[in-house]
Amino acid sequence: MTKGNDTRSAILKNALDVAGENGLELLTIGKLADALEMSKSGLFAHFKSKENLQLDVLDYAAEIFTQKVLVPAVKKPRGITRIRAIVNNWLEWTNSGLPGGCFFISTSIEYDDRHGKIRDHLLGMQKKWINALAFAAKLAVEEGQFKKKADCGQFAYELFSIMAGYHHFKRMLGDAKAEQRVKKAFEGLISRYKSGK
Amino acid sequence: MTKGNDTRSAILKNALDVAGENGLELLTIGKLADALEMSKSGLFAHFKSKENLQLDVLDYAAEIFTQKVLVPAVKKPRGITRIRAIVNNWLEWTNSGLPGGCFFISTSIEYDDRHGKIRDHLLGMQKKWINALAFAAKLAVEEGQFKKKADCGQFAYELFSIMAGYHHFKRMLGDAKAEQRVKKAFEGLISRYKSGK
Repeated sequence: MTKGNDTRSAILKNALDVAGENGLELLTIGKLADALEMSKSGLFAHFKSKENLQLDVLDYAAEIFTQKVLVPAVKKPRGITRIRAIVNNWLEWTNSGLPGGCFFISTSIEYDDRHGKIRDHLLGMQKKWINALAFAAKLAVEEGQFKKKADCGQFAYELFSIMAGYHHFKRMLGDAKAEQRVKKAFEGLISRYKSGK
Repeated sequence: MTKGNDTRSAILKNALDVAGENGLELLTIGKLADALEMSKSGLFAHFKSKENLQLDVLDYAAEIFTQKVLVPAVKKPRGITRIRAIVNNWLEWTNSGLPGGCFFISTSIEYDDRHGKIRDHLLGMQKKWINALAFAAKLAVEEGQFKKKADCGQFAYELFSIMAGYHHFKRMLGDAKAEQRVKKAFEGLISRYKSGK
């Protein structure tokens, strides 16, 4: 990794903190320059526009998410073991005390009724993630662990839903049983898709 | 209903639109005065503070939600019929094209890491709603339609989750199958809780 890359990462890490706290739309080059005590013109030369900065922050967040949630899980054997690893890593991500909660959930709420490049980029990322969940289920079918006729898209929907529910119960409601609820829901989901039942 | 109440409702309706589009935190008496073409001092005399205005908007939104989702459902027979009515009304609420999507979901994301009266008020409302879902399940147990040992809190968690998933798949992902997914998930949930299985 070059020094340029290190600087870029440090800038984007700060930008993600600012965006996580105030929303991506309120992340401006000026605000980031203040937070970093850097010159606005230097940052502007780097990112060219507010929108480019926002897109880069989204990519940066997705890269961290992928590294923390998906990459370690893909090292596990295909099938239920891998799905379980995805969910455990994802729960850790949700619990990791990010400012503003899960950056993708809060940014989705911020952009779901807007149009433009940022929404499109976010949409593309989320579709990739849902597809990755469906693909993990498909591998479980191929391994003979899930039923042959399993609806993998439905599995992805239900898994995503119980994780979204967890985010809400844990962060908004501060529900002491949130962890127990999400685990019970997840085990129920797995058992319904398992072959030989 | 008195003329005073009509005016109040008209003001709050506008305030909810402003808050739905920009977030509750950005709803100020000044911004509302602009939207209504009313004097700021007149509105201030009415609400006394920005925080009171925000709390009133929350109550107003909860009142609409209750009238649209819960009240018609409570007229249906206790048990699965009533739960089904809640879900159908709730789906209609989510589909009704509110600016900013479901006001309670977007406001939760906005306030989940803040402290103060607004968060507390929102939290109280959401707990009431989750409890109402659990209570509807409890009535289904009492009617003999759900299993005697059904975990009604878990039912409420899973129902809330699949509805949160729907909000995301429909609004953010624009998924053409969102409706089909939520219905399949809901029917699965009901069938798992049904007695005699």
